[in-house]
Amino acid sequence: MATGVASTAFLSVPGVRLAAVPSGIKASGDLDLALIEFSAGSQTAAVFTQSHFAAAPVHLARAHLAKAAPRYFLINSGNANAATGAEGMADAQACCQALAKQAGTEPEAVLPFSTGVIGERLPTAPILASLPLALAGLAEDNWLQAAKGIMTTDTRPKIASRQFSAQGKTVTLTGIAKGAGMIAPKMATLLVFLATDLSATQAALGDLLSSKAERTFNRITIDSDTSTNDACLLTATGASGVTLKDAGPQFPEQLESLMLELAQSIIRDAEGATKFITVHIKGGKDEPTCLAVANAIANSPLVKTAIFAADANWGRLVMAIGKAPTTLDPNKIDIHLGQVCLMKAGAKNPSYQEAQGAAEMQNEDITITVDLHQGQAAATIWTSDLSHGYVSINADYRT
Amino acid sequence: MATGVASTAFLSVPGVRLAAVPSGIKASGDLDLALIEFSAGSQTAAVFTQSHFAAAPVHLARAHLAKAAPRYFLINSGNANAATGAEGMADAQACCQALAKQAGTEPEAVLPFSTGVIGERLPTAPILASLPLALAGLAEDNWLQAAKGIMTTDTRPKIASRQFSAQGKTVTLTGIAKGAGMIAPKMATLLVFLATDLSATQAALGDLLSSKAERTFNRITIDSDTSTNDACLLTATGASGVTLKDAGPQFPEQLESLMLELAQSIIRDAEGATKFITVHIKGGKDEPTCLAVANAIANSPLVKTAIFAADANWGRLVMAIGKAPTTLDPNKIDIHLGQVCLMKAGAKNPSYQEAQGAAEMQNEDITITVDLHQGQAAATIWTSDLSHGYVSINADYRT
Repeated sequence: MATGVASTAFLSVPGVRLAAVPSGIKASGDLDLALIEFSAGSQTAAVFTQSHFAAAPVHLARAHLAKAAPRYFLINSGNANAATGAEGMADAQACCQALAKQAGTEPEAVLPFSTGVIGERLPTAPILASLPLALAGLAEDNWLQAAKGIMTTDTRPKIASRQFSAQGKTVTLTGIAKGAGMIAPKMATLLVFLATDLSATQAALGDLLSSKAERTFNRITIDSDTSTNDACLLTATGASGVTLKDAGPQFPEQLESLMLELAQSIIRDAEGATKFITVHIKGGKDEPTCLAVANAIANSPLVKTAIFAADANWGRLVMAIGKAPTTLDPNKIDIHLGQVCLMKAGAKNPSYQEAQGAAEMQNEDITITVDLHQGQAAATIWTSDLSHGYVSINADYRT
Repeated sequence: MATGVASTAFLSVPGVRLAAVPSGIKASGDLDLALIEFSAGSQTAAVFTQSHFAAAPVHLARAHLAKAAPRYFLINSGNANAATGAEGMADAQACCQALAKQAGTEPEAVLPFSTGVIGERLPTAPILASLPLALAGLAEDNWLQAAKGIMTTDTRPKIASRQFSAQGKTVTLTGIAKGAGMIAPKMATLLVFLATDLSATQAALGDLLSSKAERTFNRITIDSDTSTNDACLLTATGASGVTLKDAGPQFPEQLESLMLELAQSIIRDAEGATKFITVHIKGGKDEPTCLAVANAIANSPLVKTAIFAADANWGRLVMAIGKAPTTLDPNKIDIHLGQVCLMKAGAKNPSYQEAQGAAEMQNEDITITVDLHQGQAAATIWTSDLSHGYVSINADYRT
């Protein structure tokens, strides 16, 4: 999309150094290998994909995280190392071992991540050959380089920062994310790396990360498809000298705000997207009901093609709500497009004029609000439209 | 699709007369009002959409069917009479009452059906004005006209017949169907009218229809979207003098065969489709597991765009299997494309060559077989690809 582009401004996080190099996995010669180093004593929490075909690096990262506090994240783009069997696991292990040896740490302190084509062997030779350059290039101000190094079909890097004061000290929080397709609200969505100089235990970080991922990365959907390599990590270096407890409610608030910005930036860069769509459901009897209706709308190809065509075809919204796997009384439901009421109590709003809906549909940001009028719960999902661009990008991905 | 076009040959069913007229609902002047008449004593069973927003005619047809044996089906295309509130119900009732009066029967003996744009008032005036012409045009050999009269985005009518002998008498079974989008395996899919001159009770027909719909119309998906107006009906006129019991296993077999032909003809005419895709899952621990995996593949936009591009990107199949809502051991799974083994025991088949997959993908009919190797159950789903044509048709539907 032309407008709504996220800023690439960021704040470095004391205790975190990064690097990105073009190792040669991507034939284009673009950056494809990122390295993130955390100072000793840093604590990391993670959430991973729920795919049955979780990739080798996901299994290995999970195992390493259970044994040691990570000092390095080694992330390649261009190859997912998924559905690669025992060889894929050996490849991921070889990369961790080589990095650990050169960095003077244990292999368990290295977490591997991969994203790209599924089912092809990971080309370890270019990765191993590039490790010295990556280690030599580590610097605190390389966040944007790292954000570029983890991109696949993304058209731009996703990066965001927050800063606040606590106990007279400054706390910084910065994150990067990648993802533009194969995005659905199941667990973390694609690769997200978040770091702060706050001091916190792994358990406390884990609780925070899970609850905030549920309200941010788990609330976006592009195509209802789910990656084999999703991971979202939160690392605290402690360099600020401020503890999680001392920071009070500020840190959870700032964390959610930053994660939501990154999640929404993934939707703004969705494959082929021409619209940024907010689906807000209210008046539900509980949150799962609201999410069921929101996802039925957000994942409907017929809703998404109508919005691509800027057609206020609210019959498609009716159809999508109708198939939501929950119990609903259709005769109570109102639908708004922006501020315009399209449907009232289950039938066309008598005062609605087609020109009003058409005018709303000209906007790049489209908000659909459904009031179920059957309770007090609410939920919001963000999604994109389904365009010729999406078909072209995904029909041509490997060619 | 250019090839694989179903025949438009059919056999008339004694006791059934049909007509179709252009009432003017469709601006194109195409046939848009079909009437089907059944002889006195005919028995009818039905399955309807599970949408929360089931259209007014669906509610009315269900109510009428509970009160009387239908003598007439009145079916309009071009307008769904869905999300039209109390006025929509009154419109459907007015049509039934007018037809009943002219035909000399009770309104409860008329079942109304509508398909087309959702959320617009049904234009009753052209329908009422066309009833005399429709009644005057009723004839046993008008099945093809009726099949054309119920089309919306369909590019061709769907019609099929079966005939067999029982007790020295001939039994005929003929059906018509419409549907090219908003197709998902929930209950019957869009409009299907099946008639036979067998003699059977409504209860027996209902059992048969439900079990056969589950294995035919509920096993096709185009876009995972579900209509507000779906209905599938089976009527037995009894004119052959053969009872369901006397027909033995022949009738259930022929019924399933005919329903499968109509269901597959809907997929062959799917909006924008360039491929006919069979997704066969075997080796599952039970049928629901197989269906969960089959639907995850068949509804994945990333799988469907890859097949549109004739790209044997089996990583997309891995991704789709990975997100299936069931428990699976990925390390046992094999994937075949046609006769070519792509993946063996969870990783790339060592002897697989990309050229083999590319050759299979050139076919119009694509068969994906997944062997889960974790049980004895199997299930098959039929679907189409996701093309620029699908986006164009659905972006332009109301323009």
